[in-house]
Amino acid sequence: MSAWAVRSGSDLPQRAERQILQYRDSTWAEVEDVVASEYALTIYVNDNELATIVCTPTNIEELVVGFMASEGIIQSADQIEDLTVSRFMGTARVKTKHQVTFNQAFYNKRYIASCCGKGRQSFYFHNDAVTAKHVDDDVHLEPNQVFSLLDAMDEEATLFHETGGVHMAALCRPDELLLARTDIGRHNALDKIFGNVLMSGISLAGTVISFSGRISSEVLLKVAKIGVGIVIARSAPTALAIDMADELGITAVGFVRGKSFNVYTHPWRMQR
Amino acid sequence: MSAWAVRSGSDLPQRAERQILQYRDSTWAEVEDVVASEYALTIYVNDNELATIVCTPTNIEELVVGFMASEGIIQSADQIEDLTVSRFMGTARVKTKHQVTFNQAFYNKRYIASCCGKGRQSFYFHNDAVTAKHVDDDVHLEPNQVFSLLDAMDEEATLFHETGGVHMAALCRPDELLLARTDIGRHNALDKIFGNVLMSGISLAGTVISFSGRISSEVLLKVAKIGVGIVIARSAPTALAIDMADELGITAVGFVRGKSFNVYTHPWRMQR
Repeated sequence: MSAWAVRSGSDLPQRAERQILQYRDSTWAEVEDVVASEYALTIYVNDNELATIVCTPTNIEELVVGFMASEGIIQSADQIEDLTVSRFMGTARVKTKHQVTFNQAFYNKRYIASCCGKGRQSFYFHNDAVTAKHVDDDVHLEPNQVFSLLDAMDEEATLFHETGGVHMAALCRPDELLLARTDIGRHNALDKIFGNVLMSGISLAGTVISFSGRISSEVLLKVAKIGVGIVIARSAPTALAIDMADELGITAVGFVRGKSFNVYTHPWRMQR
Repeated sequence: MSAWAVRSGSDLPQRAERQILQYRDSTWAEVEDVVASEYALTIYVNDNELATIVCTPTNIEELVVGFMASEGIIQSADQIEDLTVSRFMGTARVKTKHQVTFNQAFYNKRYIASCCGKGRQSFYFHNDAVTAKHVDDDVHLEPNQVFSLLDAMDEEATLFHETGGVHMAALCRPDELLLARTDIGRHNALDKIFGNVLMSGISLAGTVISFSGRISSEVLLKVAKIGVGIVIARSAPTALAIDMADELGITAVGFVRGKSFNVYTHPWRMQR
């Protein structure tokens, strides 16, 4: 272990509890569920903002040291004189023994949006705070449509089965899949849908987005930017994505397994 | 459809063929395999570099329009006067009808490393070209160790099973898992490993990294930066990750299913 001081408390929880609506065996129940934490950490090096990383808030010191080394800013841990993590603020402040250089233009910068009610973790990038809109569309979905839309998307996913893992997003109406796009990058599949929507001029009223991966905060923000009221996925959303969905008026449906699924936010769009 | 010109040819293939070494039913065979393409696209807006996106090279125009809208740079497709995609160069050049503003500091910038032999797609970010090293470690792995290391990692993945999908990376010796880290961000799990390695000073000679997700180019680069000679994963690598592994001297093992797996690069590290 190197000699520098690490001034920080223990890890933050990697799990969070949320009240959800669960559909199982044709019945609905309100239950408490465990979801994964998601946390935006901004790293400052010698008082210059380096980057914002969205992460699980465990082993934060390792993450900071590993990220800096991975980016070539340090080569060994003993180049760091001091590392102070403020878990409440979501910041890591690094002081190096000697001057280090990095080009700030290469990194994503944080923007703390003071306008949003949920506090500093809700929006962490400038452009998200500007472009993510509240969605008011009153599309409704029946439980069997959740299953059939995800099944229809799976049938399109030939590249996934051939090559072992490509993300897929689809724009749907409750009874049909309108448009499916694949990409190795999870956000790119959604950006392709967004681009098609803008180029084709298709109306988004009454539409649903299905997604093959986890509903992270970034996925949820893309859905809000496109302007669709329901997102469904086989995987569960993160705690941060749930908070954003709550705030942005989006119904997040996830953990679709067999004939059960969870509704994490705005259950008024589900036919019950 | 809006009125702007799109000057570009057809999509690039989303699949690529690679010669691999396959282990199945205790026998080895050289076979041709299909893997997913991975492609670095740099977007210029009115001759200013906006960002580099790593993507599947299909529906590139949609991706560019969707990305720009998602970032709040445009609000509708008819703000674009011209969009020219050069698939060979990996560039999309956008001309807007009216001036648009974006803060270049918010985006990742590309760096074309002229030093690397595989051409412009091999290293697309400045810091990768600087910090990814060729790995010469002569660690060797037996087939049964591939299975047992991945099984050992799965046993650690309680958060994954509880909350539906967290990435996990582990630093291993052929016979034991040394250190496992989880994160909702695929690269963060590897950065936590890297940080621990630097802080603890543990020797990397004879080590292996196992990873829960797909071996993308970014995952492969992290392994090279940490300096480990073998990476194993249940999923397949992308074509670009295979090319990088070839160049950086890393043995990439993937598509581990039941009692079979594929060796994509540098099979000399496998006991046969």
